[in-house]
Amino acid sequence: MAEPLRIALAGLGTVGVGVIRLIETNRDMIAARAGRPIEITAVTARERGKDRGVDLSPYAWVDDMHAMAERADVDVVVELVGGSDGPALTLARAAFDAGKGLVTANKAMVAHHGLELAEAAAIHNSPFAFEAAVAGGIPVLKGLREGTAANALTRIYGILNGTCNYVLSEMEQTGADFDEMLAAAQDKGYAEADPAFDIEGVDAAHKLAILAAIGFGTRIDFENVRTEGITEVRASDIAQADSLGYVIRLVGIASLVSEGDDCRLLQRVRPCLVPFRHPLAAVTGPTNAVVAEGDFSGRLLFQGAGAGDKPTASAVVADLIDIARGQSGAPFSVPTTSLVTYPPADPGNRVGRDYIRFTVADRPGVLAEITAAMRDADVSIESLIQRGRDHEGGDVQVAMVTHEGPERCVTKALELLDGSPSLTAPPLVMPILKD
Amino acid sequence: MAEPLRIALAGLGTVGVGVIRLIETNRDMIAARAGRPIEITAVTARERGKDRGVDLSPYAWVDDMHAMAERADVDVVVELVGGSDGPALTLARAAFDAGKGLVTANKAMVAHHGLELAEAAAIHNSPFAFEAAVAGGIPVLKGLREGTAANALTRIYGILNGTCNYVLSEMEQTGADFDEMLAAAQDKGYAEADPAFDIEGVDAAHKLAILAAIGFGTRIDFENVRTEGITEVRASDIAQADSLGYVIRLVGIASLVSEGDDCRLLQRVRPCLVPFRHPLAAVTGPTNAVVAEGDFSGRLLFQGAGAGDKPTASAVVADLIDIARGQSGAPFSVPTTSLVTYPPADPGNRVGRDYIRFTVADRPGVLAEITAAMRDADVSIESLIQRGRDHEGGDVQVAMVTHEGPERCVTKALELLDGSPSLTAPPLVMPILKD
Repeated sequence: MAEPLRIALAGLGTVGVGVIRLIETNRDMIAARAGRPIEITAVTARERGKDRGVDLSPYAWVDDMHAMAERADVDVVVELVGGSDGPALTLARAAFDAGKGLVTANKAMVAHHGLELAEAAAIHNSPFAFEAAVAGGIPVLKGLREGTAANALTRIYGILNGTCNYVLSEMEQTGADFDEMLAAAQDKGYAEADPAFDIEGVDAAHKLAILAAIGFGTRIDFENVRTEGITEVRASDIAQADSLGYVIRLVGIASLVSEGDDCRLLQRVRPCLVPFRHPLAAVTGPTNAVVAEGDFSGRLLFQGAGAGDKPTASAVVADLIDIARGQSGAPFSVPTTSLVTYPPADPGNRVGRDYIRFTVADRPGVLAEITAAMRDADVSIESLIQRGRDHEGGDVQVAMVTHEGPERCVTKALELLDGSPSLTAPPLVMPILKD
Repeated sequence: MAEPLRIALAGLGTVGVGVIRLIETNRDMIAARAGRPIEITAVTARERGKDRGVDLSPYAWVDDMHAMAERADVDVVVELVGGSDGPALTLARAAFDAGKGLVTANKAMVAHHGLELAEAAAIHNSPFAFEAAVAGGIPVLKGLREGTAANALTRIYGILNGTCNYVLSEMEQTGADFDEMLAAAQDKGYAEADPAFDIEGVDAAHKLAILAAIGFGTRIDFENVRTEGITEVRASDIAQADSLGYVIRLVGIASLVSEGDDCRLLQRVRPCLVPFRHPLAAVTGPTNAVVAEGDFSGRLLFQGAGAGDKPTASAVVADLIDIARGQSGAPFSVPTTSLVTYPPADPGNRVGRDYIRFTVADRPGVLAEITAAMRDADVSIESLIQRGRDHEGGDVQVAMVTHEGPERCVTKALELLDGSPSLTAPPLVMPILKD
């Protein structure tokens, strides 16, 4: 059997330990499939002494991450430190400088610096792979880069954050409100103590930017992902959506749109209303799912565990097996010099249907004021439901679904209503996901 | 840019024409992603003169398929002729003899002769790829061979035949019986004029054998796929299943099971009861879906169009792009010499729950006879529903769901009842798919 692929592992949190366990558990099978063994030679983490439940004695301990990248007995550095900049980025650059390959699960780093790193990797033709950065154990980057390689993709979208999906689907099941279900998610380990990155949609935005870059062959553009989280979604929105035939999911959507002669890229993360019959409606709990629409393949769905030590380790080691087989291609589908730049699309041009929820004072004329603003902004209302308030002095909710129309009209209608004393809270707009 | 990958196309039916259209439509994109152009040099089919809606004049027409495989201007033969033996197999062998690569969508040929062909391919280290043979445009063979490469898979199952799934989900929607919906499927082009291969489960069995060989690294063993089709499923079964919380789907299941010290392979295609909340329950129409369960990845789902000229062409050309990139690995995950042989498992050992439907004469004592047989065979009944007959002289149906138990007990119970005049038609057993 050929020489082993020798790896150095930086970061020994749950995923790092998962990678060690996986490589130990399936050692022979991995060697058979990769055509040669995959061996860990060196490890590093912040704290050396900590008990991690795995025996680290077979591996050289390295204190200086930078030195690890330069070791002669290392072919590929596996970066599981995390963080978009700082030590992870320094290590990644050092690995490519030293002509090593890099495998990472670090979505933030790839979203912010993926292009620079792909360019650095190309200098020595070093492998650079990050399947684990998007949708945990689901081989969706491979699916897009290779499985749909013959297709012009038109739209890529999906449920990219397990925490949000858990919270939303639990709200749906229990009827409870956001804060309560977030606390439950934290109790169960599905949400961090500081959940901002997840619930505000930033984590999903990182993943969407990576998917869009690979799927469309564009220079990664995280800065232009328009991101809204799920903190404003109420139990009453979920009930309302249900009565209309929808569930609410945080969906990241990337699509190529024509504006005049230009092709532009629209990237958004938003809570959306998803029709019951759509496959994403059936995705509950911390599961992730990605849909890719190709001109020949049609609609493909990739679904599975979006996080967790074992699924993430599965994706990390799949990348290592590809590298061991000599089958690691361009990280973003085509060489970095061939990546194109699409300017960000104007979201106002989006034509679709929207759910809009107003929180209003319970007094005469409010409905007239709202519907007049809609009329003046050319928004056509398909259905409107006003529910009586739950209790004396409580809010009144007015929910409507628009007919298909340009998003800019809805934006204009809300501008017309901005500052109106009739609105007791900012309205919430959620698009209805097109089939 | 590097030298083109030159292909010869045998078979110009809808898929062959789809491949030509795809290569023409996305020519530049394919070249960018593959690192070099993919060019059709020669084509062949039974009838030369036929109008196929594409211009064949740029390509050399070859009458003798065998000669095509030996042309100096061909790197890869794309076989879209079909049929497990005959011209397709002759061409495949000729291609490997001549040191060419082979890409095929021919599930029957791969199921019957995949091992021999992989061995022939290995002699000259020629690429051999057949993504299009399983589940149309879904890159599931790549998903298993590469995406889950780090995992020991324990079970692979899915909806592998679009015709059956269309018929079953239409029966579900309309309440109509099998024959009527099959005719409708034929009208819509979802079923062949001779639908036997599809509705009797053979097509799904071909695909299952391929999935099992790749997922488990075994020598392909189509002969031991136990296959039942959907012809015995009645509208009343679907209604009954619905009332119990299930839909009926034709599911191919391959799993590794321990029998004593042995590891054995169970491969079956059967109509199954699928719980509403299972992702396969949401798969309707001619869609395919494959679930793979890995020890680290957990449950992964791959879903999309299972047939059709464009999705199938997408998979064929994805294989060609892999070959152009120099990234075609062992067709069955590991070299053929490393493939293992698992003896077929005894299905009687399967422990699970079953739905059993009896068609009985409407007279006293029948229920006692059935339940006594169940008791004598150690089958524990979870629920039993007897519905009155629809009309005077009509059949009476007794449907039951068993508690979890070994399948051999159910088989024994049915043997005890075999030949009983109380049963007016053979009973139908369908397993309940485990989550």
